[in-house]
Amino acid sequence: MFLPNKIIEEKLLKMLAEDVGQGDVSTALVVPEGSTAEAMIVAKNSGVAAGIEEAKILLESLGVKVKALVADGDNVENGQTLLKAFGDARTILAAERTLLNLLSRMSGIATMTRRLDEKLQKARLKVRVACTRKTAPGLSYFDKKAVLVGGGETHRLHLDDMILIKDNHFAFAGDVEKTVRKARSAASFSKKIEVEVSTVEDALSAARAGADIVMFDNFSPEQIRKACTLIKKKRLYGKTLLEASGGITEDNILEFASTGVNIVSLGEITNSVKALDVCLDVKNPHKK
Amino acid sequence: MFLPNKIIEEKLLKMLAEDVGQGDVSTALVVPEGSTAEAMIVAKNSGVAAGIEEAKILLESLGVKVKALVADGDNVENGQTLLKAFGDARTILAAERTLLNLLSRMSGIATMTRRLDEKLQKARLKVRVACTRKTAPGLSYFDKKAVLVGGGETHRLHLDDMILIKDNHFAFAGDVEKTVRKARSAASFSKKIEVEVSTVEDALSAARAGADIVMFDNFSPEQIRKACTLIKKKRLYGKTLLEASGGITEDNILEFASTGVNIVSLGEITNSVKALDVCLDVKNPHKK
Amino acid sequence: MFLPNKIIEEKLLKMLAEDVGQGDVSTALVVPEGSTAEAMIVAKNSGVAAGIEEAKILLESLGVKVKALVADGDNVENGQTLLKAFGDARTILAAERTLLNLLSRMSGIATMTRRLDEKLQKARLKVRVACTRKTAPGLSYFDKKAVLVGGGETHRLHLDDMILIKDNHFAFAGDVEKTVRKARSAASFSKKIEVEVSTVEDALSAARAGADIVMFDNFSPEQIRKACTLIKKKRLYGKTLLEASGGITEDNILEFASTGVNIVSLGEITNSVKALDVCLDVKNPHKK
Amino acid sequence: MFLPNKIIEEKLLKMLAEDVGQGDVSTALVVPEGSTAEAMIVAKNSGVAAGIEEAKILLESLGVKVKALVADGDNVENGQTLLKAFGDARTILAAERTLLNLLSRMSGIATMTRRLDEKLQKARLKVRVACTRKTAPGLSYFDKKAVLVGGGETHRLHLDDMILIKDNHFAFAGDVEKTVRKARSAASFSKKIEVEVSTVEDALSAARAGADIVMFDNFSPEQIRKACTLIKKKRLYGKTLLEASGGITEDNILEFASTGVNIVSLGEITNSVKALDVCLDVKNPHKK
Amino acid sequence: MFLPNKIIEEKLLKMLAEDVGQGDVSTALVVPEGSTAEAMIVAKNSGVAAGIEEAKILLESLGVKVKALVADGDNVENGQTLLKAFGDARTILAAERTLLNLLSRMSGIATMTRRLDEKLQKARLKVRVACTRKTAPGLSYFDKKAVLVGGGETHRLHLDDMILIKDNHFAFAGDVEKTVRKARSAASFSKKIEVEVSTVEDALSAARAGADIVMFDNFSPEQIRKACTLIKKKRLYGKTLLEASGGITEDNILEFASTGVNIVSLGEITNSVKALDVCLDVKNPHKK
Amino acid sequence: MFLPNKIIEEKLLKMLAEDVGQGDVSTALVVPEGSTAEAMIVAKNSGVAAGIEEAKILLESLGVKVKALVADGDNVENGQTLLKAFGDARTILAAERTLLNLLSRMSGIATMTRRLDEKLQKARLKVRVACTRKTAPGLSYFDKKAVLVGGGETHRLHLDDMILIKDNHFAFAGDVEKTVRKARSAASFSKKIEVEVSTVEDALSAARAGADIVMFDNFSPEQIRKACTLIKKKRLYGKTLLEASGGITEDNILEFASTGVNIVSLGEITNSVKALDVCLDVKNPHKK
Repeated sequence: MFLPNKIIEEKLLKMLAEDVGQGDVSTALVVPEGSTAEAMIVAKNSGVAAGIEEAKILLESLGVKVKALVADGDNVENGQTLLKAFGDARTILAAERTLLNLLSRMSGIATMTRRLDEKLQKARLKVRVACTRKTAPGLSYFDKKAVLVGGGETHRLHLDDMILIKDNHFAFAGDVEKTVRKARSAASFSKKIEVEVSTVEDALSAARAGADIVMFDNFSPEQIRKACTLIKKKRLYGKTLLEASGGITEDNILEFASTGVNIVSLGEITNSVKALDVCLDVKNPHKK
Repeated sequence: MFLPNKIIEEKLLKMLAEDVGQGDVSTALVVPEGSTAEAMIVAKNSGVAAGIEEAKILLESLGVKVKALVADGDNVENGQTLLKAFGDARTILAAERTLLNLLSRMSGIATMTRRLDEKLQKARLKVRVACTRKTAPGLSYFDKKAVLVGGGETHRLHLDDMILIKDNHFAFAGDVEKTVRKARSAASFSKKIEVEVSTVEDALSAARAGADIVMFDNFSPEQIRKACTLIKKKRLYGKTLLEASGGITEDNILEFASTGVNIVSLGEITNSVKALDVCLDVKNPHKK
Repeated sequence: MFLPNKIIEEKLLKMLAEDVGQGDVSTALVVPEGSTAEAMIVAKNSGVAAGIEEAKILLESLGVKVKALVADGDNVENGQTLLKAFGDARTILAAERTLLNLLSRMSGIATMTRRLDEKLQKARLKVRVACTRKTAPGLSYFDKKAVLVGGGETHRLHLDDMILIKDNHFAFAGDVEKTVRKARSAASFSKKIEVEVSTVEDALSAARAGADIVMFDNFSPEQIRKACTLIKKKRLYGKTLLEASGGITEDNILEFASTGVNIVSLGEITNSVKALDVCLDVKNPHKK
Repeated sequence: MFLPNKIIEEKLLKMLAEDVGQGDVSTALVVPEGSTAEAMIVAKNSGVAAGIEEAKILLESLGVKVKALVADGDNVENGQTLLKAFGDARTILAAERTLLNLLSRMSGIATMTRRLDEKLQKARLKVRVACTRKTAPGLSYFDKKAVLVGGGETHRLHLDDMILIKDNHFAFAGDVEKTVRKARSAASFSKKIEVEVSTVEDALSAARAGADIVMFDNFSPEQIRKACTLIKKKRLYGKTLLEASGGITEDNILEFASTGVNIVSLGEITNSVKALDVCLDVKNPHKK
Repeated sequence: MFLPNKIIEEKLLKMLAEDVGQGDVSTALVVPEGSTAEAMIVAKNSGVAAGIEEAKILLESLGVKVKALVADGDNVENGQTLLKAFGDARTILAAERTLLNLLSRMSGIATMTRRLDEKLQKARLKVRVACTRKTAPGLSYFDKKAVLVGGGETHRLHLDDMILIKDNHFAFAGDVEKTVRKARSAASFSKKIEVEVSTVEDALSAARAGADIVMFDNFSPEQIRKACTLIKKKRLYGKTLLEASGGITEDNILEFASTGVNIVSLGEITNSVKALDVCLDVKNPHKK
Repeated sequence: MFLPNKIIEEKLLKMLAEDVGQGDVSTALVVPEGSTAEAMIVAKNSGVAAGIEEAKILLESLGVKVKALVADGDNVENGQTLLKAFGDARTILAAERTLLNLLSRMSGIATMTRRLDEKLQKARLKVRVACTRKTAPGLSYFDKKAVLVGGGETHRLHLDDMILIKDNHFAFAGDVEKTVRKARSAASFSKKIEVEVSTVEDALSAARAGADIVMFDNFSPEQIRKACTLIKKKRLYGKTLLEASGGITEDNILEFASTGVNIVSLGEITNSVKALDVCLDVKNPHKK
């Protein structure tokens, strides 16, 4: 999931343009033209840094010099400086909120992802924590990137990169096994096929029909465990990856993760983000 | 904060375009061209509906018929249908996630705003709950709109619509009173001036210099109460609005709101949103 | 009203793209690839320079070196060089007309604004000359910026930054006093409220109801003077700013400005611009 | 110069989006959701209507019904209604200023063009009044369209549609005759070649070398007359069109137009527009 | 690969906007405003129709009524009418070239794809014909869609939807087996992994390491056959899909396709398109 | 046909953005962040290089250093290196396909154009080879530029730069001579008028009426020769340029070109491009 900086820059400049509107009227009044400043972006809480790369790209595209003191994925402490910048003071102040909004959201996502991932690792479970497509509209790239930074799994990036047959599709498709076989034969060889199921039987049918991944949607941990046992019996375990989704929280994630699935996915990672508090402090203001 | 539908439509289509990428490969495989369906958008939790108007605009722009069963701002229960749609099944399914992401975010924002606002109303405090510019980048319009729907106060919409002089500005500006007077004389008559202060003295200076609003940044409730008392003594109370910001949470909001301020503002309303769970169920699938 | 250069650059490049179309066919034929040149942008009339900053941003974004010889807001004489540039000759020639069109429009606006403002200053009137939203469509930022450069007042930047209740609103709203009170209680605390009135009574009602600004729309100077006297009597003078608008010209501006109002506004400043004549002369052409 | 409505619509919606910003806060407060209204767009001065087609396209794209009472190019009187609209009141009011700004600019351009054109017609001169590329940046299509509506000649639409070799090109190209011959042989057969000259000799050289048009730049009427005589002598008259440009005003246009040239061009038509005053009046407001 | 019509419409309108530039000057001169016409889009050669859906979307978005007489994927004969349209004559004529350019390119792609696919089917080979990412820049969606219409396989839609490790990656990665294993463990579970190899050994290593697809790049048919035999021996056949790429033409495709591979891919399908000749004929012109 | 680099850059970045989607997932997995590489773009076939300038602009805008070893228009051999690049390895690999797609298309166009042009030159015919507007949608600038690089004639760049009256126009216009005269008097003086004819009589009428160019559409060489003879008789030869179009191929081009026409035009040059095979090889990979 690598984008050339220039492509990211264009996305970031659109965000900035929205926030500045017709211009920063406060800074224009109070900060003389040509003033320079240092700016420190500081964490006001502990967590996992994400968005550092993006902050750098935005600031540099604005002509501001940047020195990142932490890298994306680093654990940071309350009070730790993440990034130093130096340049035109008005520009820095006009970009401050856009920068912080992105950093605090991405770091919030990475922090929660890391916390969940570590929980599984401590329990010695080889299970991946995945986000879903429940991202903030328009922010999919940044939300997914933050999940990656936190050690999570990005799942589908958008509607074109894996086939995922869900309950609303089955309303049209009918029988699980036939549907999956048909999809397999018609789909591009380059795509995996995941099938969302709501019963143990359908899980078996999907696996039998060659689904690459079976997703247990809103199953209890107990039901998933049962399904996994059956799939093992049928010698389909390992051929088909298994994903648990729906109703998983930080509290119950271990119960779901210990059922035999390979992936647990949570919409909350990206749609119920708790922002990491970060602020920007101006130092050494220098009027022209 | 009224935007013509067509302008909103363009914003929504960009969100959709991001999510569909080169196309919905799942729906293309499983749902025959020309199929139609009904779709019900259903709340899976109780809260305040927001984004209904936007969902309607997006669906209608895609040629889907829509009947909203609730209005923005309505309280909704778990299981309640918010909106019915009818039209091309592939189109509905390709737009499903974008719709739900927007609805769940906006409703989440409105729900928290309403809860905070009701807390203040029950305590018979005439204090407004405001969000800040800590919105998701690129989603400022939708986040602010959701706050409005929830009964909150939108604060600055972007950097051009009020003058807000903050600590980083004072690094350049020096003395509070002089800075405010200078800003007042140089600023457009059409703009209010708000001053963020960090001491009681600065609060008084700002009020004296004619600030329209004084924001107590990261004060304790006790400090704010003291400042309010002083401002009353100086007969500036009422001329200058007072805002508390920083460190305010759902738990302590009453302590802050009862200090004498007119506005309490929280970044969390928009940067730490808990999404309202909503889903889309297909009914009456009809293959062509 | 400060925009980061990069944001301005994007606006300017769109203007250039419109003018070059599929390419400058003349320059491609006559000027050899790789040629360089100096270019002098020269005023062919006297006036106030504006757009210098924008010209610099556009040229630099195209890889052309620029030295501004005057600053925005400087008075310039016929024949005076405003800016020197050096770089790729084809690029300079392809951008020439876009540059000059912007400079001549912005300078024309600044020139008229300055002339009006000086008229008031000479008459020792503390009244501000304001433009309106009657800008060229799509050029609002540049038109308003030019007004600012000329010493004028920008008024509302767009529809979201002040509440301005006009005659067409009253068609729905009814009674002035009630409408203003209702707006005051429902509006964001961050916004001022201006009310356009067409009778002296309505002016008083609006002021009484707490309008931040009252605009006399198409009043005669005599009527405005009368209204001001009444407002003073009611001790509302100073609490509410007063604006005269409609029918004001360079000839009669002093009559309007001496009535007691704080602001006089003219649509003509931005919708009936007389361009300042500027040209670009190539020097030291150097073929590769 | 025909653009499909949909293409024009996109240009117009961008203008509107700029003006509404994050939304019309006044209308949202004062006009209840779902209200409808009639709106009359009325001329407050006499002149030539232009932009009627564009106003219709914008309003219809917003879902507003429109009946144009005049056509582009019609002479209109002070007080005459140009267009009636009916639809959502908030939408009409949010679009009002964008509509009027476009109509008043385009009508202003058409009015001046018509006035100049009629002057020439009354003098029985078969000379065309042309605008130049001195349009408002970004508004080239609309400015040129308005010239056309006023009976004028659009000249080059942008840098790709005719070859026009100017003084700054000659800085590289040297000898006029050789340059023109070279351009003729290298240029696309689909393009005309116009040559801007500053001496009578160069005019002759250019005509001799096969220039399709020769432009006398900043010549006095006397000098142009002399040049025309010479060109006739050389039997080049008629083969090469002749254009006078520079220093032409409404006052002296007949002097220039009677010299023998085919075209007189004035930058002022598009860069020093006097807007035609138009307003929008709401009738029959209907609250939902 | 389903896109909502509205998303396709926006892509098509951009194409049209490029071609019309500042407007269709010919049609404006010759066809009176308000004229209507029927238009028939007719094939001037036999082939496979593609782009019919897109043509319909574009015309309908312009307000033109459309009746498609063939569907995407239908075989069409020289002289056969593909589509009838009725509406504003100027609009139809201004859109004619954009429509035909898209139809002729897409139909050309579909035609070649079908021809290749039928060749394999006649030879009773269960091998899929795939295109590559060698599409016309900016036209990826349309080129891939046309391949699909012709019965081909779309391969990767862009850089984010499958992992494809190529020679230039191995310059960094070293050993094939290790690289593939590492990629497998680090990659998203939702993505397949394809490995481009240049030796038989590497093919085996890649298959052994769990590559989902192995691509023989620029192998001779003989070498591929050998590799397939070895892979069968190792019992990896069927687990890993095999693709032949490089040097495949219409003439030799059967040699490559009969080696045991599952997919043959050709850049030529999309980068060396022979357009299907189509034209638009106006019927029943009706002047207003 | 000169565009400032920055304008071209924006077009190229849009192409790249389409291809990278949410990011290059392969490169991200296999190439460590911060790695650098040299890249050689090498021809795998002989032909005429085109797109070199564009490749340079794209790579440089991405921060990659470039040294072009050939210039646009150079003949290149199989195996010849066209361009060397050095920079961030991930960036180079993510841009590889976009670069090669553009280069191979543009070079393919230039190669065919040159081949046709040389054919005419060898036959000592002073006839120009022209492309048409049958370009790939959205790629008009690049297709036309490639034709120019190959020595061809670009014809109309879009619908606004010459008047070309075609059969579909005559459906409205009626009589050829009258139509042309009317167009001549109504059209901008800056535009040439070309008339497409289908009979010898119409060719004469058009020439007589002052058409700048007459296009023989789908005539046989014999018919064209006859028409040319007649036009010479009427002493219109030379005044009106003559173009042959329709049915012209590489095989029969000399027959058409020797009829007396000035231009032969072929849609195939741009709509049936045979890509020139080019590849990108990474050298000196350097992991950070």
